[in-house]
Amino acid sequence: MKKLAAFIFAAAAVALSAPASAQFAKSEDAIKYRQSAFFVMGQHFGRIGAMVNGKAPFDAKAAQESADIVAVMSKLPWEAFGPGTDKGATTKALPAIWSEQAKYKEHSDKLQAEATKLAAAAKTGNLDNLKSAFGSAASSCKACHDNFRAK
Amino acid sequence: MKKLAAFIFAAAAVALSAPASAQFAKSEDAIKYRQSAFFVMGQHFGRIGAMVNGKAPFDAKAAQESADIVAVMSKLPWEAFGPGTDKGATTKALPAIWSEQAKYKEHSDKLQAEATKLAAAAKTGNLDNLKSAFGSAASSCKACHDNFRAK
Repeated sequence: MKKLAAFIFAAAAVALSAPASAQFAKSEDAIKYRQSAFFVMGQHFGRIGAMVNGKAPFDAKAAQESADIVAVMSKLPWEAFGPGTDKGATTKALPAIWSEQAKYKEHSDKLQAEATKLAAAAKTGNLDNLKSAFGSAASSCKACHDNFRAK
Repeated sequence: MKKLAAFIFAAAAVALSAPASAQFAKSEDAIKYRQSAFFVMGQHFGRIGAMVNGKAPFDAKAAQESADIVAVMSKLPWEAFGPGTDKGATTKALPAIWSEQAKYKEHSDKLQAEATKLAAAAKTGNLDNLKSAFGSAASSCKACHDNFRAK
């Protein structure tokens, strides 16, 4: 009975899953996926920001946990900007993402590198290291938003 | 100039971030956060499901990547079910989450354990191992949905 339940659930999961030719069943899923990844990343980035800016007490362990999550999340959204995912749901993604792929990739690579550095800085447990890495990562977020995200 | 931009961006991030007393600025953020984490998890779980059920070719590397993401995501949603987050945005979360905390925690702990096992199974590169771990994890998803999520 338990096995049957698992099987039914698995079948439902498959219905939601992507065909072999693409990672997302439909454009709407890709848009929701990248927005979800950015939202989780933004929440944890914000927690670090609060510490860095003295709005919350510095908690080295919490900062490290959040930075690790930021680093993981920073790798996810990009595959969800495939061809045709410029529409299908409400999105702030600008057409430049698809018309200026090289520049876009440069920005997304930069963010991933900065997020890795942020996680390394958080690991030191030193607030000054965290501040510095946070500033660089925030610049990277902003640069991409300025170029590729609608206001 | 770059520093200033970073500072402004950081300030914006802080505005979005949580006060020290809670991880989320408002209930709506908590709901969006947990839904985001579940959505990313579900997408990757679905990719593994497609392989396990023969709807997509078995790709050991892709399965492992997705299982690792599932394992990370499985740890995130729970803190976003704090007091007062039963409303504030559209949610399928049932009141039982808050009225049956022990049972709820048991389910969420179980999922995290199953997700860890799924990642370990994916690491072996063996499809049968993956199938078995996927079935158990899917049962764990379903059990929690049956008890704590509206249809």
